[in-house]
Amino acid sequence: MQIMKEVIETGDFDFYPVEHHIIDSSTDGKKVEIKWSDGHLSKFHFIWLRDNCPCCIHPDTREPIFNIVSMPDDLLIYSVSTTQEGFLEVIWSGEPHTSYFHPGWLRSHCFDLLKKPFPEPLTWDSKNKKEPDRFDWNEIISDPKTERKWLYSLVETGCSIIQNVEPSKNGLIQIAKRIGVIRETNFGLTFDVEAKTGPDTAAYTEIGLPPHTDLPTREYQPGLQLLHCLKNSVKGGESILVDGFRVAEEIRLKEPETFDLLTSVPWDFGNRSTLTDYRWKTPMIKLDNNGKIEEIRVGNFLRVPLQIDFDLIEPMYKAYKLLETLNHDDRFKLRFRLEQGECLIIDNRRILHARDSFDSSTGERHLCGCYIERDELWSSIRMIERRNRQKRMNSALNQ
Amino acid sequence: MQIMKEVIETGDFDFYPVEHHIIDSSTDGKKVEIKWSDGHLSKFHFIWLRDNCPCCIHPDTREPIFNIVSMPDDLLIYSVSTTQEGFLEVIWSGEPHTSYFHPGWLRSHCFDLLKKPFPEPLTWDSKNKKEPDRFDWNEIISDPKTERKWLYSLVETGCSIIQNVEPSKNGLIQIAKRIGVIRETNFGLTFDVEAKTGPDTAAYTEIGLPPHTDLPTREYQPGLQLLHCLKNSVKGGESILVDGFRVAEEIRLKEPETFDLLTSVPWDFGNRSTLTDYRWKTPMIKLDNNGKIEEIRVGNFLRVPLQIDFDLIEPMYKAYKLLETLNHDDRFKLRFRLEQGECLIIDNRRILHARDSFDSSTGERHLCGCYIERDELWSSIRMIERRNRQKRMNSALNQ
Repeated sequence: MQIMKEVIETGDFDFYPVEHHIIDSSTDGKKVEIKWSDGHLSKFHFIWLRDNCPCCIHPDTREPIFNIVSMPDDLLIYSVSTTQEGFLEVIWSGEPHTSYFHPGWLRSHCFDLLKKPFPEPLTWDSKNKKEPDRFDWNEIISDPKTERKWLYSLVETGCSIIQNVEPSKNGLIQIAKRIGVIRETNFGLTFDVEAKTGPDTAAYTEIGLPPHTDLPTREYQPGLQLLHCLKNSVKGGESILVDGFRVAEEIRLKEPETFDLLTSVPWDFGNRSTLTDYRWKTPMIKLDNNGKIEEIRVGNFLRVPLQIDFDLIEPMYKAYKLLETLNHDDRFKLRFRLEQGECLIIDNRRILHARDSFDSSTGERHLCGCYIERDELWSSIRMIERRNRQKRMNSALNQ
Repeated sequence: MQIMKEVIETGDFDFYPVEHHIIDSSTDGKKVEIKWSDGHLSKFHFIWLRDNCPCCIHPDTREPIFNIVSMPDDLLIYSVSTTQEGFLEVIWSGEPHTSYFHPGWLRSHCFDLLKKPFPEPLTWDSKNKKEPDRFDWNEIISDPKTERKWLYSLVETGCSIIQNVEPSKNGLIQIAKRIGVIRETNFGLTFDVEAKTGPDTAAYTEIGLPPHTDLPTREYQPGLQLLHCLKNSVKGGESILVDGFRVAEEIRLKEPETFDLLTSVPWDFGNRSTLTDYRWKTPMIKLDNNGKIEEIRVGNFLRVPLQIDFDLIEPMYKAYKLLETLNHDDRFKLRFRLEQGECLIIDNRRILHARDSFDSSTGERHLCGCYIERDELWSSIRMIERRNRQKRMNSALNQ
């Protein structure tokens, strides 16, 4: 079959081990039904198959060039069958076009077997978690399994600590680049958290910081924050984490009316500076379309005067007081000391971070931080899984 | 009054010209009521005033240090009055604390006078708009009024062209830095849009690009896109813009069921690459909590196989077909030629951009682009307004 050589088998750059074979295919005039060698059945709509025809892509970029605008509403097929190579062959009606679908690709897109791409967050409090999971930097870069475990841990728990990192800005950047592109802000590509003269934010003082997310003042809070410890010999300055999702769950359960306020009434965030004036107005707890807790935004020192319906002022302050009381409650806090050479990574849209005040006269405390979007984390995990699929395919071919 | 010298008058770094004076103040036991010299009345809740006490801030950063957790639920005041300097004086009950509120600051925060910070989007189609508004780069950097007009135009129309920009990457970066921090992506801090060998996205070929937003594959699409024309001598390659909000409005009006699908059923976006695997799943049209159109996400070539409820496949393709048909309809398109030295800026969460195919053998076409978050635009506008308030204050003082 000459045509098989011309098509790019799956239309993307991924790998699809063939673990089941198509043993039968049929159509009801709207969908194609496939019977697999393990007895499983899959169904695919004509329009979905036509859209995903693996040859209707740009040959270099493999991006789709299928144009739905020119498609008839009543798309029909002439025939469906299985090729000698085990591909699903669909000959389209009304246009001189045939599509060949790779069995591994088809199976992995079966609508009855769709899996969530990532594990759900495992929320925690001080009862079921004592410290962020720890990983060794050298193991991460030398052992793909450790790297995978580290990244999944970050998705599930929203935090992790990497140990044995070079205690320098360069050490931080190495970790960041391992995940992806750094998101620069007005504080720089990276920023130094230490007691400074003329600080432009509370982080750059010795005072304790209440649990907060970073840059709630922006339309989009940074997804991940890295805080790498270059020096920490001061008295005080312990690190504190709070799982904002866990606190929100508690409020939802015990104070549903407060939860409604926190998820529906906007709150005014803003920075104070002579150079910039970033503000964002949005509820402190954000739900997705299905009512699932999606994002937390808190920063007591990153607020500007609340400007909402006058009658909501008192209820909202009451709601804020409850939220802040829980955020400060030891029941929810992990407290630990970040040591030199340890890099803390947190999901900044879920995990609040805080620190105890410290006394600069007793030593030095210097963290170096940066932000990364969560897309980079998720892309990294997908690429690890892709390489694992590639290995499985290669080892199957070598057997 | 010695204490007045010790407090920072307004607790922030902003300027509040005093255009009205407090002539009376009173309380009903829960709120303070103020009568102004122009007869206007303002009311403020105790808790709101206490939270915004201008001395409860860090002296350097001016960030709030007020802690609501330690506040009693039944906050009371001992007295309210006006000082000789015209400040509102509130003596708190139950703690040895007095707050002094600047009259200009108070008036500008009156709940009955709250204004939207920015104008609403003025949506457009090819009937009421022919080209993006054009501004001259030298005027922008030399005349604050032109700069202000340019930035507001960008907020309202979602697009603008700056002319007479140095046709180089440096020219692009100058404009970007004028607004704020560049958002780097896997395509770089800046990226070159030209026909390349071994392109990793459709933009880097000669083919026409359908109307799309950039990076719909990310959790957060970049807010602003800058596309600066370094060279354009080819045949073809005209630029096209579509106001995605306008198209969405039309669908809402004429096809409400389709609108419901497009705003509620997620759609699968993804890139195709050997190096990264960015994906995001979300409805193509995003509404805010009040049902207002907030964001558009479209990119025919930036999709991965749709994985939603099986029964929604056909309705969603039908909805997508309608959306794409309108996105390609001349009724909605601005078509213009970007000339050397012109920089196009668009709101990438609202405006779709496209280009006609071109023929590299007829000349050169080279755009240089980058992304910026919209926060930077809004902060720039606020800073311009702040400087204008400062000027008004200074000129009042000099009279």
